[in-house]
Amino acid sequence: MPAQLIALDWGTSSLRAYKLGPAGVVLEQRALASGIMHLPSQPREIAGVCCSDGFELAFDAACGDWLDAQPGLPVIACGMVGSAQGWSEAAYRNTPVDVASLGQALNRVRSVRGVDVHIVPGVIEQVGLPNVMRGEETQVLGVLQGLGAEVLIGLPGSHSKWVEVVDGCITHFDTFMTGELFAVLSKHSLLGRTQQPAEHFQAAAFDRGVRVALSADGQRGVLSTLFSARTLGLTGELAPDQQPDYLSGLLIGHELAGLPGAAKHKPIILVGAAPLCTRYQRALGLCGFAHVSLAQEASERGLWQLALAAGLIQPAMEA
Amino acid sequence: MPAQLIALDWGTSSLRAYKLGPAGVVLEQRALASGIMHLPSQPREIAGVCCSDGFELAFDAACGDWLDAQPGLPVIACGMVGSAQGWSEAAYRNTPVDVASLGQALNRVRSVRGVDVHIVPGVIEQVGLPNVMRGEETQVLGVLQGLGAEVLIGLPGSHSKWVEVVDGCITHFDTFMTGELFAVLSKHSLLGRTQQPAEHFQAAAFDRGVRVALSADGQRGVLSTLFSARTLGLTGELAPDQQPDYLSGLLIGHELAGLPGAAKHKPIILVGAAPLCTRYQRALGLCGFAHVSLAQEASERGLWQLALAAGLIQPAMEA
Repeated sequence: MPAQLIALDWGTSSLRAYKLGPAGVVLEQRALASGIMHLPSQPREIAGVCCSDGFELAFDAACGDWLDAQPGLPVIACGMVGSAQGWSEAAYRNTPVDVASLGQALNRVRSVRGVDVHIVPGVIEQVGLPNVMRGEETQVLGVLQGLGAEVLIGLPGSHSKWVEVVDGCITHFDTFMTGELFAVLSKHSLLGRTQQPAEHFQAAAFDRGVRVALSADGQRGVLSTLFSARTLGLTGELAPDQQPDYLSGLLIGHELAGLPGAAKHKPIILVGAAPLCTRYQRALGLCGFAHVSLAQEASERGLWQLALAAGLIQPAMEA
Repeated sequence: MPAQLIALDWGTSSLRAYKLGPAGVVLEQRALASGIMHLPSQPREIAGVCCSDGFELAFDAACGDWLDAQPGLPVIACGMVGSAQGWSEAAYRNTPVDVASLGQALNRVRSVRGVDVHIVPGVIEQVGLPNVMRGEETQVLGVLQGLGAEVLIGLPGSHSKWVEVVDGCITHFDTFMTGELFAVLSKHSLLGRTQQPAEHFQAAAFDRGVRVALSADGQRGVLSTLFSARTLGLTGELAPDQQPDYLSGLLIGHELAGLPGAAKHKPIILVGAAPLCTRYQRALGLCGFAHVSLAQEASERGLWQLALAAGLIQPAMEA
């Protein structure tokens, strides 16, 4: 089946490439470690030119053979590839922003093989503390279809995003550094010293962490409750292999406690890696959030729709 | 002037030794890097015996010459030296605890030179989430003299403690991992990448961090506001050399926001390194805490009083 579009989800630490066919069906996909902070550096010949640019090298590794086979394929990309440290900076769009309209604001960079890469701009909120996203706006668009007028979309990760969407517009979003904090605390703090990896998910320890975050003790904030990951070990209440999931539940619980109260009554859609979304779904249940569902293939669907909006592919081709 | 007591404040990363004369006056003091996690390992002869035990080596380096000169001097020590990973475990005492009474509960370990080291027990609170201290109980005792019946004692550091004292008893305390979090975020997270050290204290950036923690944005918790240390850099509102003090103010602000509201009306005493206490004093002012003062020489005074209570030295010798 001939492809219609190459879609790249190009973040800080990874690069996912999708070859999409009619109606955006995924014909083939690849995951590379070539995030913009981990680009290849070994010079190589591309389209007859000796090339040492990391973006060109990663791009060629991700989809050079697809382009060799179908040279006219349009290419669209989202994520940190459009940041100031990326391949070509795609200026942020301000909230409130109609996510479908981002297709009219693509930035273009011409690769050494003569193919244009169309880069989706990120979104910035400048009310109160500034907040930024790159890549998540595309995932948001990718899951909106068929949803009601008001939804809250959670994108758990190193820097979890919670995005409020009203009538297809991102009206507000927050970022929580939960995943990165879990990683640095486990690797570099006192808390990591007594942790041991568990063979299985330690559900009771995770739930306990969530409940502590929601408790009266949790009101003092995460700087205070963090120390319980150590003291519950000292008092024999948490085994070393329960401590990582306790810490995970504690941090996720504090994140969810920071969501606006009104969020409890909105439909919530979770987007991201399945094991992490499952943790969040469990924690959301403990926190009393009633309407939670998981979405799949958000990036590739969003990129398809933006390419349509940009005229890179034709609606007729969807049939 | 002949000494009366050797007092050791022996923590995780450092060992402070004091030679105290009549009435506890400091005759000489030393700071070594030989905390219990950084003990020396090079074997050496002590009192005619070849010794490879890290605690013996550090103890001898800290005050061996003082003991050679006055072999009968009593020795008292507080801090992590009494933990399970220390020289000899001094079991925790439960809250509420009369801090002066800890002098009756010293643990004793005999050094290779035949001198007993008397170790002060730590304190544990087992109401709600467990909380522990080792060393701070001695500092609390050291600053209590002359204070009113109810005080709140703040001991900023890697793991800041806030200790409520009523009539000489520790009734409740909290721990905040503020200092350690600042260190691991600056060294190992995304936030550190754009930070640059400043030549001077960046007061405006620090104050801004404190105010953000107290603001409506701060209600979402530190996991959320942390990201502003990055985004305010992205939007040009925080220069690289302002980012460390912004982060410091933000974390200290969240710590202080976690203190009970009633704390605002109690006298607050800060104990610790002067530059850090000055930061906390500034932040406390911004948070509306009215009665704040700084205390000095808390450890050595507390150890002196505990040695008196234990009968290691005689009150008459104070005259």
